[in-house]
Amino acid sequence: MPADALAALIAELPEGMVVTDPAVTEGYRQDRAFDPSAGKPAAVVRPRRTEEVQTVLRWATANHVPVVTRGMGTGLSGGATAVDGGIVLSTEKMRDIAVDPVTRTAVCQPGLLNAEVKKTVAEYGLWYPPDPSSWEICSIGGNIATNAGGLCCVKYGVTTDYVLGVQVVLADGTAVRLGGPRLKDVAGLSLTKLFVGSEGALGVITEVTLRLVPPQQPLATVVAYFASVEAAAQAVLGVTSRLRPAMLEFMDSATINAVEDKLRMGLDRSAAAMLVAASDERGQAGSEDAELMAATFTEYGATEVFSTGDPDESEAFIAARRFAIPAVEEKGPLLLEDVGVPVPALADLVSGIARIAAQHDLMIAVIAHAGDGNTHPLIVHDPNDAAELERANLAYGEIMNLAMELGGTITGEHGVGRLKRPWLPGYLGPDAMALNQRIKDALDPLGILNPGAGV
Amino acid sequence: MPADALAALIAELPEGMVVTDPAVTEGYRQDRAFDPSAGKPAAVVRPRRTEEVQTVLRWATANHVPVVTRGMGTGLSGGATAVDGGIVLSTEKMRDIAVDPVTRTAVCQPGLLNAEVKKTVAEYGLWYPPDPSSWEICSIGGNIATNAGGLCCVKYGVTTDYVLGVQVVLADGTAVRLGGPRLKDVAGLSLTKLFVGSEGALGVITEVTLRLVPPQQPLATVVAYFASVEAAAQAVLGVTSRLRPAMLEFMDSATINAVEDKLRMGLDRSAAAMLVAASDERGQAGSEDAELMAATFTEYGATEVFSTGDPDESEAFIAARRFAIPAVEEKGPLLLEDVGVPVPALADLVSGIARIAAQHDLMIAVIAHAGDGNTHPLIVHDPNDAAELERANLAYGEIMNLAMELGGTITGEHGVGRLKRPWLPGYLGPDAMALNQRIKDALDPLGILNPGAGV
Repeated sequence: MPADALAALIAELPEGMVVTDPAVTEGYRQDRAFDPSAGKPAAVVRPRRTEEVQTVLRWATANHVPVVTRGMGTGLSGGATAVDGGIVLSTEKMRDIAVDPVTRTAVCQPGLLNAEVKKTVAEYGLWYPPDPSSWEICSIGGNIATNAGGLCCVKYGVTTDYVLGVQVVLADGTAVRLGGPRLKDVAGLSLTKLFVGSEGALGVITEVTLRLVPPQQPLATVVAYFASVEAAAQAVLGVTSRLRPAMLEFMDSATINAVEDKLRMGLDRSAAAMLVAASDERGQAGSEDAELMAATFTEYGATEVFSTGDPDESEAFIAARRFAIPAVEEKGPLLLEDVGVPVPALADLVSGIARIAAQHDLMIAVIAHAGDGNTHPLIVHDPNDAAELERANLAYGEIMNLAMELGGTITGEHGVGRLKRPWLPGYLGPDAMALNQRIKDALDPLGILNPGAGV
Repeated sequence: MPADALAALIAELPEGMVVTDPAVTEGYRQDRAFDPSAGKPAAVVRPRRTEEVQTVLRWATANHVPVVTRGMGTGLSGGATAVDGGIVLSTEKMRDIAVDPVTRTAVCQPGLLNAEVKKTVAEYGLWYPPDPSSWEICSIGGNIATNAGGLCCVKYGVTTDYVLGVQVVLADGTAVRLGGPRLKDVAGLSLTKLFVGSEGALGVITEVTLRLVPPQQPLATVVAYFASVEAAAQAVLGVTSRLRPAMLEFMDSATINAVEDKLRMGLDRSAAAMLVAASDERGQAGSEDAELMAATFTEYGATEVFSTGDPDESEAFIAARRFAIPAVEEKGPLLLEDVGVPVPALADLVSGIARIAAQHDLMIAVIAHAGDGNTHPLIVHDPNDAAELERANLAYGEIMNLAMELGGTITGEHGVGRLKRPWLPGYLGPDAMALNQRIKDALDPLGILNPGAGV
C-alpha cells in the first residue's frame, strides 16, 4: 500500500472510524477459529452506513488492498482471519432494524446480533427461525455470510430460506440492491441467494430483507438415551421417516458426561447416546408428535424415554444440548468440526470418528443436528503441545475425508473460511471449483475480498 | 453455422434424437407466450441423458450456435422462444425419478411434469409443495428454470426453497454437480440457487435433487365476497397479519363472472371481489384458522362468507380459482401478466389496472395470489386486430410500470423470457443489471444460451 494511502482513507471517513491502534486492531485479527496464520491488519474500519462501506471498497480497489469483512467474530472456520497490511471491515456498528408486520419482513443492517433480530421481531408477534448455537453472540450479517444453520433447520431450513433481499457493496464500491420485501420475484438472476453464504468473498452485505413467520408454538420435547450409537442413529431415521420434528439433536457419551459434569442435571452418564427431539405443532398435534417420537425411540431400543410438554422442562434439555460446546471446552481447547452427511450415514460417521479419535489418541466428543445430518465433532487438544496439535489437525482432515466418502459435505453451516479451504477443491471437484472461481473472478477481479478464504 | 455442422451433430447422437423435419420443429418454436418474434430452429434435439446434453453444448460452443432449452413449453414470458438457425433442446424425454423417503429427497430429470413429481413422491407419503397453476402440464425443469411459484407459496415459499442440488451442463459442455441430498451444505458459493430461475441462460439443468416434506393435511377453506376491491384487499392484510394461510387467492368481478359462465357453480356475480383462503394446519388448528379467517373477512365487510372443512367442497372452490385463466380465455386470447407488489399495495395495483383497462378500452380480468402480492392481470385482446394488439401491448407495459411504482416486480413467477426483457434494465437499475450481465458473461461468454431471453 502506498505510504499515504491509509491517510487518504482516514481523511475520507468520519473521525475515529478508521482505527490503527494496535491495541485495538489486535482484537480483530482472528475469529473463533483462532487461525494461527492470521495477519496484522493495517487498520480496522467500523462504518455505520452503506456509503462508508462504498468509500472503503473504492479505496481498496484503487490501492489493491485486501478487505476482510467481519461480523461479531464468532466464526469457526477462519472466515474473518485478518490479512497482513489489509483492512478489517467490521459491521458491528451497523445496527438499524425496521420490522413490517404486514409484509412479515424486517430490513436490517448486518451488525445486529441474531438474538437481537429475534427479540425485535418478537415484539411484532413474529419469528426469525434460524438459530445457530451462537445465536446470542453472533451477528445476522455473519449468519448471512455463512448461510448459517442451527437446531431448527431440520424443519425450518437455513438462513438463505429467510433472505428475500440484500444490499451489497461490490469490490469496486458499487452498491447494488437485490430482491426486496416480496416472496416472489424472478426478474433477473437469483443473485440475492448467490451472496448468501459467500463469506465476504464476493461483496459486503450492508442491508438485508428478512422473511419472518408466525411465532413458534411451545415445544413438546422428548429425550431418550440409547445403549449404542447405532440404535440412536436408527431411531433418528425412524423419526424422520414418520414426522418432521422441529428439532432432533444427538449427543454422544463424551458430550453427555461433559455436560453432566457442569450442569449436574441428572443425565444418564452410562448412555452411549442421547437424543433431544421436539415438536412445535399447534395444540394437540404437538403432543401427538411427541407421543409418536417417544414410541419410536422405545421401538428402536431406547433405554429411557422422557417426554414433556412443560416449557421449562423442555428448555432445560435444550439448554443441555446448547451447553455441549462450552462443557466439552472445559476439557481443553477445541478444534470444532462441521461435517454433514445424508442422515442414513450418521451412524457410520459417528463410529468412524471414534476410530479416528482412537487412532490419534484424542478425545473427540460428537454432537449432531441429527435430523439433518450436520455433525460437530469437537476435537479436544492442547495447541501448545506440537505433537498433539498435529494429531488434532490430522484428525480434522480425516473427518472431512470420511464425510465425503459417506456422501457428505466438508461444512454444513460454519463455512469454508481459511481452515477448510484446502479441502474445498477436493470436495467440489475440478469442474465445480472452476465454476466457483469464474464467479469469484467476475465479481472480484483483483481478488481483494477475503483473499484465501471461502471460495 | 457451417453447412456440415448439423450433420456432425446428428452423427454424434443416437438416431432420431436430432429432428430437422419442419413439421415437427414448427411445434417447438414458441411456448405459451406465442412470441411473434420466434425464429425457425435448425433442429430440435431431444436428449435422454446428461452426456447427450453435453454433446449438444460442446457442439454449439464449437459452432457458435444458439441453444434454447425447453421443458413442456408452458412458459408465459417467451423463455422458450426459438432462435433462427439455432437448436431447441427439449428435455421432454428426460423422465427418470428416484425418491428417498429417509432423506426426504427426490432426484429427478427435468422432463417430468410437476404433477408426476407430486404423484410419485406421494406414493412414499411425501409432498413436493410448489404448485404453479399449470402444474398438470408443466415440467419440473421449467419450474426450476423460472423459479416457479403457485398458490401455496404464501406459506410454503417458491421452487428454489425445494431445490437442494442440480446437475447442470454449462455452455462449453462441462457437466457440474452442485449441492445434493443435504439440507445443509455451505462448501463453496451458493451456485445451486444461482441456476434456479436462470431461464436457460446460464446452463442446462439435467438433474435436480428436490427437498420433500410430509403430506399436506386436508384443507379447511373459506370463501368470501366483497362489494369493493379495497375491502377485499384490506381483508387480505387482516388475514396475513393474524395467521399464515396455506392459500389466499383473489378474483375480481370479471374473473368471477367468466368462471361462473363456464362452471355454473353459483358464484356471486354481483361481487366486486372474491377471496379463497385455506388452512392446512393439523387437526383442530385448521378449523381454528378457518374460523379466524371467516371472522376477519366479516370484520372487513365481506358480503358473504362460506367456510368448509369438507375436502370436496374445498376442492370445488380451489378448482374455480384454478379454472380462472381458461374461463377468461373464453372471452378472447390473453396476454397474461405476472407482476407482484408488497401485499399492502394490492388495492392500488388492482385499481390502477382497472384505470389502464378503461383507458385502453380493454377487458383486463385480475386474479392474484393475494397473500404474497403476485398478481396476474389477464389482458383479453384480439391479436389479429392490429390496433387492439397495440393497445394490449401498451397496457402490458403500463401494468409493469405501475407495479414498479408501487415497489413491486415485473415478474413474480413466470420469468423474464423475451417478452419482459425490455423492462428488465429499468426494473433492476444499471448497477444490478450490470451485475447480472457480468455473471451471464462469465458463464456464457459466447452468448449462445437462450440469447435475448432472461438476463
